[in-house]
Amino acid sequence: MREFLVLFNHAPTSPDRVRLKDLPGSGRFDLVCRVTTQALLYSHGVRTDTVVHLLLRGPDDPPKTITVTGRRVRRLYPDERTTAIHLRRALEADPDTEPHPGIFVRRADLEDLLGEMKGAKLYYLSEDGRDLEEVEPEPDAVFVLGDHEGPTPEQDRLLRRHADAVISLGPIPYHADQCIVILHRYLDVKRPPEYAHGPSNVM
Amino acid sequence: MREFLVLFNHAPTSPDRVRLKDLPGSGRFDLVCRVTTQALLYSHGVRTDTVVHLLLRGPDDPPKTITVTGRRVRRLYPDERTTAIHLRRALEADPDTEPHPGIFVRRADLEDLLGEMKGAKLYYLSEDGRDLEEVEPEPDAVFVLGDHEGPTPEQDRLLRRHADAVISLGPIPYHADQCIVILHRYLDVKRPPEYAHGPSNVM
Repeated sequence: MREFLVLFNHAPTSPDRVRLKDLPGSGRFDLVCRVTTQALLYSHGVRTDTVVHLLLRGPDDPPKTITVTGRRVRRLYPDERTTAIHLRRALEADPDTEPHPGIFVRRADLEDLLGEMKGAKLYYLSEDGRDLEEVEPEPDAVFVLGDHEGPTPEQDRLLRRHADAVISLGPIPYHADQCIVILHRYLDVKRPPEYAHGPSNVM
Repeated sequence: MREFLVLFNHAPTSPDRVRLKDLPGSGRFDLVCRVTTQALLYSHGVRTDTVVHLLLRGPDDPPKTITVTGRRVRRLYPDERTTAIHLRRALEADPDTEPHPGIFVRRADLEDLLGEMKGAKLYYLSEDGRDLEEVEPEPDAVFVLGDHEGPTPEQDRLLRRHADAVISLGPIPYHADQCIVILHRYLDVKRPPEYAHGPSNVM
């Protein structure tokens, strides 16, 4: 299984702060949406082997972790607005529920998530890391990324302590959603997933 | 210079068909927007060496080609809605104008564009192509991609005739915007652009 954990320290945790007409001004909720869709969608299909954890730590009710699983999710479309509506509904829901098929919400901060992931191969993406092609990460692994402002120094220390390796994707700093696309393609070539070249499973 | 030419046979060419509340239902204008931003933006910067051509052939006034140049474009943000507003304004404008800094619109179909690109290295992306890493495309080149429905048989024939090579990105079919992210990263590593590791130039 491929897992992505993305840290959004400023993304809203209460639904009324997600304004569909201004997702960038809503704590960069546009980036939260793109991370979700780029993690889970390819052309005409859903990545059934992938899970994405969105750790939201902005106002007014932090922390919340929304987890979207490719195996269960339904009606996930590639555009930001539709995805924002799904995720906003998750912020309206009670913690520890699945308000939409394949979308779960709970109270969990970074320490909790790292605790759950114990035993998994964990890679932390940072510009000062070693080259992707040199590290050769396992396909069954957790990849941890920050948003446009990056993790806090405390989160950074915690992640470096837990990571099997720190990975850099090259000389250009990418958006979190772009990093995910690059990682997926690296893993697709390294070990093609079951849905490779098969019939489309959704949409 | 890196150039991307993306064929959208169903994307609207008249502004009233671009509905901000339903970009997917507007001839998949969400994909047009993501192609634009993924071609031109990295984290906190604009790719000043990149140009993207959006060939739109849907109703009601086809064909139109919108060209966005990284060197000139202003106020380009990564979210779909803001980008849709910019591009819709280009559809409102008279052909052969620059209605927004760095965004040009004109009457041009595939044959016209290929004529202009004569002499440039041209790579056509198709699932039956040769592996990216085997072709080793030049960084100064034009990459031509189809949208979610792909080029027409006639466009496909024309592109194969003009292309220096047909490239496949691997065992998974990607969205056009994902293909662009993958190509950019391949080229970034192969020959880091001027803005690599430099100060952010925009935003």
